[in-house]
Amino acid sequence: MELLKDKIKQDGIAVNEHILKVDSFINHQIDPELMQKIGEDIATHFKNQNITKVATIESSGIAPALMTASALGVPLIILKKQPSKILNQDLYQTVVTSFTKETNYELTLSKKYINAQDHVLIVDDFLANGEAATAALRLLRMSHATIAGLAVLIEKSFQPGHAKLAAQGIEVYALAQIEEMSENYIKFKE
Amino acid sequence: MELLKDKIKQDGIAVNEHILKVDSFINHQIDPELMQKIGEDIATHFKNQNITKVATIESSGIAPALMTASALGVPLIILKKQPSKILNQDLYQTVVTSFTKETNYELTLSKKYINAQDHVLIVDDFLANGEAATAALRLLRMSHATIAGLAVLIEKSFQPGHAKLAAQGIEVYALAQIEEMSENYIKFKE
Repeated sequence: MELLKDKIKQDGIAVNEHILKVDSFINHQIDPELMQKIGEDIATHFKNQNITKVATIESSGIAPALMTASALGVPLIILKKQPSKILNQDLYQTVVTSFTKETNYELTLSKKYINAQDHVLIVDDFLANGEAATAALRLLRMSHATIAGLAVLIEKSFQPGHAKLAAQGIEVYALAQIEEMSENYIKFKE
Repeated sequence: MELLKDKIKQDGIAVNEHILKVDSFINHQIDPELMQKIGEDIATHFKNQNITKVATIESSGIAPALMTASALGVPLIILKKQPSKILNQDLYQTVVTSFTKETNYELTLSKKYINAQDHVLIVDDFLANGEAATAALRLLRMSHATIAGLAVLIEKSFQPGHAKLAAQGIEVYALAQIEEMSENYIKFKE
């Protein structure tokens, strides 16, 4: 998506080989018009797949996922992060290890909101190592829903997330794919 | 807003005098069409106030705040929760004590995104004791921005949040005001 790539070139900050800051338009300050266009782009890509729900991971995926759900006319499910690991029989629960932040957290999904009849599109902001996306898949599989794919705004194509998901048969749709990055330098995949 | 009140009556679960579950349309599963109408309603209410930014508190306020920002055509700023209290000179920081959850967390705002020229509308899902809203106000005041008001989807009018904010001269716009609540019983303020 050229609009997003242009925005990344203009306002994104490549700190080093691994860290890209997009605080000014995706994470901390959000441009609603850009988010709406992103949502419409993702919805268009998946429009013939009979998606029944959009799911995202709390919290930086909420904005693009909401706009996608709005464009598709389906509910949005927010997979909630929680620090505790208290077992709750009304929830599907899975532990996520974040390499980036070196922390563990639990991701949860109420059993009420997704079931075996659902065909779910996962939307998130970043795909790098794929830990969050993989955890989302684990939760959704517990519900016996089928997965339409994963849409991400920005993929760090030099990290293994995309390959790991593709190896499981998951379609990954990335609006901007970064092939290489270093301080003040971003190279997109053609 | 009648639409929201009807939805609360239909799908909200009053657990006891204090807990109202709106997981199925606001917090966990989100109805994008309802959120859009909520955003438009809030935007209409504040449309003549020259709002420059909408701010919300991570993460359950993001959906209605994004739709409000979209309807007003202004950026959305997400005030970020973080567990640590490491001082950072690029951030405004304040500690929030949650009565409901009996925890402390820190709320932060990058100095880059709001300044003295801004006129900010705060949007959140719930107003009860007003801890989160008061913390958002503290952060925004550090930036010397002016405050247009606080819009919330659901106000528990029997708790002191509204009165505390009104005493500071803050306009509170609540789409649904609950006067009284108990198990399976909700009474709205007329």
